[in-house]
Amino acid sequence: MLQAEINILELEAIINGLRNGDRRSLARAITKVESDSADGREILRQIYPHTGRAHTIGITGSAGAGKSTLVGALARVQRKRGKTVGIVAVDPSSPFSHGAILGDRIRMQDLTSDDGVFLRSMASRGNLGGLSEMATGAADLMDAAGLDVVLIETVGAGQDEVEVATAAQTTVLVANPGAGDEVQSMKAGLMEIAQIMVVNKADLVGADTAVAQLKTLLAIADHGSWIPPILKTIAKTDEGIDMLADEIQKHFDHMRSEEHFDVERRNHVRGQIIDLTRAILQRRLIATTANDSTLETLINQVAERQRDPRSAALELADVISQKWSEY
Amino acid sequence: MLQAEINILELEAIINGLRNGDRRSLARAITKVESDSADGREILRQIYPHTGRAHTIGITGSAGAGKSTLVGALARVQRKRGKTVGIVAVDPSSPFSHGAILGDRIRMQDLTSDDGVFLRSMASRGNLGGLSEMATGAADLMDAAGLDVVLIETVGAGQDEVEVATAAQTTVLVANPGAGDEVQSMKAGLMEIAQIMVVNKADLVGADTAVAQLKTLLAIADHGSWIPPILKTIAKTDEGIDMLADEIQKHFDHMRSEEHFDVERRNHVRGQIIDLTRAILQRRLIATTANDSTLETLINQVAERQRDPRSAALELADVISQKWSEY
Repeated sequence: MLQAEINILELEAIINGLRNGDRRSLARAITKVESDSADGREILRQIYPHTGRAHTIGITGSAGAGKSTLVGALARVQRKRGKTVGIVAVDPSSPFSHGAILGDRIRMQDLTSDDGVFLRSMASRGNLGGLSEMATGAADLMDAAGLDVVLIETVGAGQDEVEVATAAQTTVLVANPGAGDEVQSMKAGLMEIAQIMVVNKADLVGADTAVAQLKTLLAIADHGSWIPPILKTIAKTDEGIDMLADEIQKHFDHMRSEEHFDVERRNHVRGQIIDLTRAILQRRLIATTANDSTLETLINQVAERQRDPRSAALELADVISQKWSEY
Repeated sequence: MLQAEINILELEAIINGLRNGDRRSLARAITKVESDSADGREILRQIYPHTGRAHTIGITGSAGAGKSTLVGALARVQRKRGKTVGIVAVDPSSPFSHGAILGDRIRMQDLTSDDGVFLRSMASRGNLGGLSEMATGAADLMDAAGLDVVLIETVGAGQDEVEVATAAQTTVLVANPGAGDEVQSMKAGLMEIAQIMVVNKADLVGADTAVAQLKTLLAIADHGSWIPPILKTIAKTDEGIDMLADEIQKHFDHMRSEEHFDVERRNHVRGQIIDLTRAILQRRLIATTANDSTLETLINQVAERQRDPRSAALELADVISQKWSEY
């Protein structure tokens, strides 16, 4: 048999296994997607028509808000309600060293022995915009594998979170009452893409203040037909988690209702395609400049202050656009 | 006189005024840069040969760490040392509504009556990567206007911060002892681009733990010839701020020393050009897709699950690369 034929058979086996809910096939498929290989893209292409059944939920917010604990608690509630759960935990990582801290993985250890839970921790590819691509790819695979609910947890708060939020059907924003400034400075942008707000660690001083601040921000935010509820939880003792699961379900039902479905779906897809395109362009930018003398020439000119960095960037953008079109 | 001639005279007046340290000219120049106009780009092009004298310092870190207070305290210490100070405060803002919360501006009110301080608050342009471009442009203008030190404060922690950090000559990472997880999950990436680490609010419980955690992370981080010091401060009472100013000066001297200058300068310029190019490409992406039927067609296909979002994004990337090359 030719290598290409072996390859096709291998992919077929992975896809069939995955669609039958085989955990090992699912794990192998995610690994292929994570490595950003042609195989990974082919798998995603083939399974996509079989996605759309799961409810994808993004859990985001600032560091120290207890997101991992909340994700764990939410997974347990979903299990009690008879649902299978996929978890994509995106670890913080270096844009330069590609290192990742795996604390969150350890905290979810008790869930890993449950056959109805599939957990995957992944490191971001740093600055290249790959995070969103890999995480949503993994979520699509879990969806196609028949998991009912897919939780995507992201740490930190930045462009990556915005991308993950547009990729998930329901986004939960988790705030920490501890830091007073936190809610205030929590970007209005995140407010507008979150469908549910949670003040976690609600037993700490400042929880009610945080809720009040969120309400104020919400009043000036732009939220379509769904008005985001603001909940208090104490994830480590499961307090408020049942109600959170209820609100998540309500948003799902709202989104699936006839009058909103098409608009929601198209907005969702638009955000996904634009984010993925941006990620592709960023990768091409890095790849192109790595093998191009233009950048080195421009660096010399700017370092000597013979020209300014902005006009240098405009020239570089033109040169690489020209190159890309010749692909 | 023709409009074009009036325009040239106006720009000449702004540039001359700015180079003589005239505050009104500096303010007008920043406004032109903020509006991303041809005038703004022309001003930046013309003043760039006159930059490089100021010390640009990025202050970054997570929300609630007290960065604004720290920036204020640092500005006052620099003033006592006889230096003039520019401050670029980047407010959090929405990627969708372009709204901004101006709390930080209010907190620095007492500095605004000092003629040796020039403060400018700016809203990010959201997701388009404009933040870094506008903030570094404003810093360049302050540099050309003769201000000795330029402090750039960014709120939140994400790609924007990484970009601001590569644009500043010295980057200070501010952590909050309050949140235990915070330092842990504080991306290794930010660790590697910060030249000075600060645990602010050092009177709170957990400060020593935070310092210890930062030391651990630092040990595995990749830092060239400069080993980042870890300092404790209480910005609201000025404690530790003098020492912070000393360490910032030490880093400046290190960077300017003969053996490091060329490498530092080239790395700095490389980061700046690549970030600006990325910002330009992102803006072109948004502009191109706004007037292109390809995206709408692709959205329809993906919404119907006839094709997957990744292959749609690849097609879109190719179509717009083709378009850009025809500019």
